[in-house]
Amino acid sequence: MTSFIQRVAKLGANALLGVFTSSGGFDGAFKELRVVAIKAGSVTATLPVTKPLCNSYGTLHGGAAATLVDIVGTMALLTKDPRRAGVSVDINTSYLRAAKEGEELLITGQVLKTGKKLGFTQVDIARKSDNEVLVTGRHTKAL
Amino acid sequence: MTSFIQRVAKLGANALLGVFTSSGGFDGAFKELRVVAIKAGSVTATLPVTKPLCNSYGTLHGGAAATLVDIVGTMALLTKDPRRAGVSVDINTSYLRAAKEGEELLITGQVLKTGKKLGFTQVDIARKSDNEVLVTGRHTKAL
Amino acid sequence: MTSFIQRVAKLGANALLGVFTSSGGFDGAFKELRVVAIKAGSVTATLPVTKPLCNSYGTLHGGAAATLVDIVGTMALLTKDPRRAGVSVDINTSYLRAAKEGEELLITGQVLKTGKKLGFTQVDIARKSDNEVLVTGRHTKAL
Amino acid sequence: MTSFIQRVAKLGANALLGVFTSSGGFDGAFKELRVVAIKAGSVTATLPVTKPLCNSYGTLHGGAAATLVDIVGTMALLTKDPRRAGVSVDINTSYLRAAKEGEELLITGQVLKTGKKLGFTQVDIARKSDNEVLVTGRHTKAL
Repeated sequence: MTSFIQRVAKLGANALLGVFTSSGGFDGAFKELRVVAIKAGSVTATLPVTKPLCNSYGTLHGGAAATLVDIVGTMALLTKDPRRAGVSVDINTSYLRAAKEGEELLITGQVLKTGKKLGFTQVDIARKSDNEVLVTGRHTKAL
Repeated sequence: MTSFIQRVAKLGANALLGVFTSSGGFDGAFKELRVVAIKAGSVTATLPVTKPLCNSYGTLHGGAAATLVDIVGTMALLTKDPRRAGVSVDINTSYLRAAKEGEELLITGQVLKTGKKLGFTQVDIARKSDNEVLVTGRHTKAL
Repeated sequence: MTSFIQRVAKLGANALLGVFTSSGGFDGAFKELRVVAIKAGSVTATLPVTKPLCNSYGTLHGGAAATLVDIVGTMALLTKDPRRAGVSVDINTSYLRAAKEGEELLITGQVLKTGKKLGFTQVDIARKSDNEVLVTGRHTKAL
Repeated sequence: MTSFIQRVAKLGANALLGVFTSSGGFDGAFKELRVVAIKAGSVTATLPVTKPLCNSYGTLHGGAAATLVDIVGTMALLTKDPRRAGVSVDINTSYLRAAKEGEELLITGQVLKTGKKLGFTQVDIARKSDNEVLVTGRHTKAL
């Protein structure tokens, strides 16, 4: 099964648009992720908070939020160069507010800097209904 | 379905030992996680790197590693007080080396500090065969 | 000697405007920091990159940038409640581009969330001439 | 004025031992830092918490702690290769306990991984009297 990274490397950044194509691995839980807008250096996606993404409190799992930082940060870098997904160096996330099961998320990934060796992105996970940021993080990758 | 947090709150820290009990949500991918040792302030667990934990390169997904920091950091805090799992404040992870599909991981969670309001943990994800640290992170929780 | 925290606690958030008042301690190196705008939840400041702020490469020291995240993040929180400066929990910084000696910095601190127990801020350090972000970080405080 | 980086590049890692040689810039506040032990991949240093290192509460400034992560993390990398100090990519710090003015600190920097392109270190700042860790952080550098 091809991943979004392989698909984008082949078809270009526009292949990010639409339903997320999982690699059949850990990102399989995010199959309802949908990229609704891309431009050079940024990606906007939506995702419903379904039970398979939640913790035992019925809110978005902290690990799922960190995984979104990884996935959507990578997507943002692929808009700059579809052939360079890179390898994770550092990820950090701050948990501002809980995302409840049933809510719709609006996730934006933005390239802060990309160079020969390193790419830096910021990913904000907001509640779509009021645009309140719930989780924010950064993803540094070696390219 | 009860989560490990609910089970531990009821039965005490020893309920962490053995096979990980998922909440039926995002942590479902970690059902082969097994806690092999606990003491006050630390937890040791093992986990095989199976395909459902991997990225499209066939190595442990960065988001899976961050989720392990969340889960095993929480477990370490539960050894101190089984009724206080807390809520995530900050998670950070550094990716030193790739964990390949088929390898066995040894994960240690250690409480750095726990107080009235906050708990801090460090989680190291090592390769069991040679004890080399692959990913290291910290998890701060509001208790 | 009173610090900006003490001055603000007494006089209110408007006391942040103008030249930075050091506590006579580690923040003494930032005496040319000047707050040029405040509103509820955000602070804008300027600072020339002078030699006492640099590393041996003649660029802004990584520690100086992290200290700015601490100081300006605290200022942003004080605009929300001048009596609650809080205590640092976590700071993280990503270094995108070097700030050279002689350049003028534009630093913005923004409250991401403030509650009963915790405050989260983001601080961006940009080059004033072209508004390019050089360093970005987050500061979590217990209030 | 030569920095410790320049001195070590010329004289080798043993030049780290003894009193810290500042570059005459931001690290000037750390002139009482003393490296008491080095081996390949780790550095141990002592430092008294003097007033110039403190915040307005009379405890070690969060920015000073982050600067120590930068300085001592760099030193640890220099024990591996004295000619490659690298450039900061990411720094993070967690503040577990306050370091009070007058206390003596024991700071250990440890290389977690060093490769062709990147170096990762962990720095722990402990109170010397009881070895309690007060601040812990990681420093990622591009080499």
